[in-house]
Amino acid sequence: MHTLSKRIVEKKSFQNFIIILILANAVLIGMETYPRIYDAYGSVLNVLDVVILAIFTIEIVLKLIASEPTGKFFKDGWNIFDFLIVLFSYIFVGSTYVTVLRILRVLRLFRTISVIPSLRKLVNALLMTLPSLGTIMLLLGIVFYVFSVIGTVLYRDVSFEYFGTIQHTALTLFQMITLESWASGVMRPVMEEAPYSWIYFVSFILVGSFVVLNLFVGVIVNNFEKVEALENGDDDGEELKQEISRLRDEISELKELVKNRE
Amino acid sequence: MHTLSKRIVEKKSFQNFIIILILANAVLIGMETYPRIYDAYGSVLNVLDVVILAIFTIEIVLKLIASEPTGKFFKDGWNIFDFLIVLFSYIFVGSTYVTVLRILRVLRLFRTISVIPSLRKLVNALLMTLPSLGTIMLLLGIVFYVFSVIGTVLYRDVSFEYFGTIQHTALTLFQMITLESWASGVMRPVMEEAPYSWIYFVSFILVGSFVVLNLFVGVIVNNFEKVEALENGDDDGEELKQEISRLRDEISELKELVKNRE
Amino acid sequence: MHTLSKRIVEKKSFQNFIIILILANAVLIGMETYPRIYDAYGSVLNVLDVVILAIFTIEIVLKLIASEPTGKFFKDGWNIFDFLIVLFSYIFVGSTYVTVLRILRVLRLFRTISVIPSLRKLVNALLMTLPSLGTIMLLLGIVFYVFSVIGTVLYRDVSFEYFGTIQHTALTLFQMITLESWASGVMRPVMEEAPYSWIYFVSFILVGSFVVLNLFVGVIVNNFEKVEALENGDDDGEELKQEISRLRDEISELKELVKNRE
Amino acid sequence: MHTLSKRIVEKKSFQNFIIILILANAVLIGMETYPRIYDAYGSVLNVLDVVILAIFTIEIVLKLIASEPTGKFFKDGWNIFDFLIVLFSYIFVGSTYVTVLRILRVLRLFRTISVIPSLRKLVNALLMTLPSLGTIMLLLGIVFYVFSVIGTVLYRDVSFEYFGTIQHTALTLFQMITLESWASGVMRPVMEEAPYSWIYFVSFILVGSFVVLNLFVGVIVNNFEKVEALENGDDDGEELKQEISRLRDEISELKELVKNRE
Repeated sequence: MHTLSKRIVEKKSFQNFIIILILANAVLIGMETYPRIYDAYGSVLNVLDVVILAIFTIEIVLKLIASEPTGKFFKDGWNIFDFLIVLFSYIFVGSTYVTVLRILRVLRLFRTISVIPSLRKLVNALLMTLPSLGTIMLLLGIVFYVFSVIGTVLYRDVSFEYFGTIQHTALTLFQMITLESWASGVMRPVMEEAPYSWIYFVSFILVGSFVVLNLFVGVIVNNFEKVEALENGDDDGEELKQEISRLRDEISELKELVKNRE
Repeated sequence: MHTLSKRIVEKKSFQNFIIILILANAVLIGMETYPRIYDAYGSVLNVLDVVILAIFTIEIVLKLIASEPTGKFFKDGWNIFDFLIVLFSYIFVGSTYVTVLRILRVLRLFRTISVIPSLRKLVNALLMTLPSLGTIMLLLGIVFYVFSVIGTVLYRDVSFEYFGTIQHTALTLFQMITLESWASGVMRPVMEEAPYSWIYFVSFILVGSFVVLNLFVGVIVNNFEKVEALENGDDDGEELKQEISRLRDEISELKELVKNRE
Repeated sequence: MHTLSKRIVEKKSFQNFIIILILANAVLIGMETYPRIYDAYGSVLNVLDVVILAIFTIEIVLKLIASEPTGKFFKDGWNIFDFLIVLFSYIFVGSTYVTVLRILRVLRLFRTISVIPSLRKLVNALLMTLPSLGTIMLLLGIVFYVFSVIGTVLYRDVSFEYFGTIQHTALTLFQMITLESWASGVMRPVMEEAPYSWIYFVSFILVGSFVVLNLFVGVIVNNFEKVEALENGDDDGEELKQEISRLRDEISELKELVKNRE
Repeated sequence: MHTLSKRIVEKKSFQNFIIILILANAVLIGMETYPRIYDAYGSVLNVLDVVILAIFTIEIVLKLIASEPTGKFFKDGWNIFDFLIVLFSYIFVGSTYVTVLRILRVLRLFRTISVIPSLRKLVNALLMTLPSLGTIMLLLGIVFYVFSVIGTVLYRDVSFEYFGTIQHTALTLFQMITLESWASGVMRPVMEEAPYSWIYFVSFILVGSFVVLNLFVGVIVNNFEKVEALENGDDDGEELKQEISRLRDEISELKELVKNRE
């Protein structure tokens, strides 16, 4: 049982079959969003969806059996991801939350990442850059909170839509940090009632952009190092050092030779 | 015949003549877009256009003859580009699709790239960076598709213009990833009916920007490496290694000398 | 007294207590911005605020006593920052400037930076990049001033809101340099009255972006160097040079050996 | 006469005096833009302006005399800049083009660049990066021209303001490449009449951004190299090579020694 399932799971053709299934699933989900298609072929689509879900379930069961100590399967974050995606599909099946079910179904498309190795490696690499950005994201959080409170206190009565509560202001600040309509949509209307409010807005743009710029630089530096680390498996400096140490060995030998001839 | 056409084609003055012709063609096409000029000199412009097309045809015929095995001409993507541009000009000539013809005519300006060597090299270099971005573009595609389906399911009824079908939503997401009016134009109107929609929009901006940022970093890293590879034709590390290996040879020689004297 | 306070101040648990207090303070200040909560628990919040301010005062007094020469405390910019934040809280207490007081109170949250060492290091690093950007910021200042005066002279009568005085124009230029609505909001309305104004706007965008781009490159280069300096504590080139010099020593020794044997 | 003027011109205090004068001039020009100040002190400001212009004239005359072969003065681009700024002030003086005169006067502020050495060096460095960007700017120009003609042909009748003539379209494309309102302001209104126009807009954004991104990368690479070239005056690789060649000399010497002893 165990060896059989392992042999199946590790077959290249099995993996390709799953990839094709995920893509077919993606197409089905896409088609469902067109009311005309859904009205005409809705029942067919639903049946196909159940079939695909069944195959995904079998796939996970096989993988569970194939993993040597059964617990090992859950040590890989991507396996947990696959497992939860399928599990939730069962929980919400038949429920009245059709929208939730649909969103869950489309999230299955993210399984492409867990199934295609190159994508998996890329996403793992991207996620690994996040922890190293911890401190600067903490700093960004503090800047956001402080400006949110100040903004709410100062401009709540000027524009409730943008500065009504701390949550409103935080969203507005997020919009501002992407520089989207920060002046024409947010600052200028507020300035009509509070002429000195530009101090608040300009200082947030300056501080925020500077911190975000450094956040980006952090990501870029991280990526460069990753790329360089991958390339310099044949580290030039290392090779040189080895060359030189071999040279030293030769000279030592030579010294011995000269000494011994005495 | 073959040697004659080859001698013509390879002449510097012939190449410059073609460049000038392309630029003259560009000016003519530009002039045609001004109704006043077109009404007054339309027939002259048309005659000139036919003349230029004729010369371009002769040029391509000459090049075809000049290429040693005739097939070799079509091995270069830029030659195929030149060939198709001229070919299509004939196909649509006299057709009622005046607009198509005009666009084809202006595309001839891209021939500048195929004719000026430095531009050709630059564009080849730019195009060569694209394949290495394959995986991250696949990831971006998945993110786009997932968010398109979710957006369509959730907000189709709120704003048909932006989220009517998957295509509509994909276009909206493309607009959002350039950060253009993503908040003032797209999110805020939707939020008036679906107050929690900010979760969808903010998470797309965060995920999308992060992936795109890494895409850009990919381009930048690629370029840096290209530049470095060009410069380090005189690779420092390589030279050093050669120096050291020569040193080792000398020492070996020396060792032989000492040994032989025994 | 001195040693006691020093022992308290340097305790890890004391520092953690202060961090928790700052965060609790942040939550309190956040809660105050919700009118409902403030109306119901306003007096409780005020009492808690006084208690926290008292503890902060004690903390600073302890730190003052703990610092060997008392003046040393004020040598660290962050200590001065802490001191002023607490001091101003007393000055404005009971004043009618409730808004000023509140803003001062939220600025206390920035104390997180002075208290958490990793944040402190990060912010110090960020601030240290600023002086090296001096010249390019001076250049940016000149560009801003020149374009502000020209803009005010030319378009004051076209759009007072954007170009009324030098200050108005400077704010507009700042908005333009972030590329926010520079065309749709600023240029196009002005162009309706002054058709050639696009020369002014486009040249500012080109010059401004180019200078700002170089400012950003300055920040990035700075950061890269900082990172590299941190990493290359084990400087490859340096090590190699040492290796080679040791090699030379060996050869010299060998030479002596050969000479002496004569 | 020549040595005297040279001694004056090269004095540090003379240079500082000129810098202060330029700044004073800047303040005066700024004050003139406020109608109230101008109405009250207009005549005073005008007199001061004449005085400053006179001193600038004397400065240039002195510099002209001081330069050994008189022609040498005009070999430096910045001197020509200074000369023209002063010259044009005379040409337009008393003319009715008050606006032109004022703009010329504010351009004098750019003299700060020619007078402060660190600024001069920076701007020279920035300008020097431009030629190396020639090819990619030519490519950008071709892309702009082709898309301008196509845009004008296709959408002239849809939106004359944005696509009326090639110039209108080029300005619109410039706006689009800065991503300013490219979708909400330009594409969406056009799409109402020409539903497939998104192909034109999206492809321009993709092609344009890609080329511009590479243009930026060009600037960044240039800057990095400049910075590295400045730092690596003590080129590590070079030093190492010299070390190794010295080593080889030692070994050759050693070889000679061993040989001679035979």
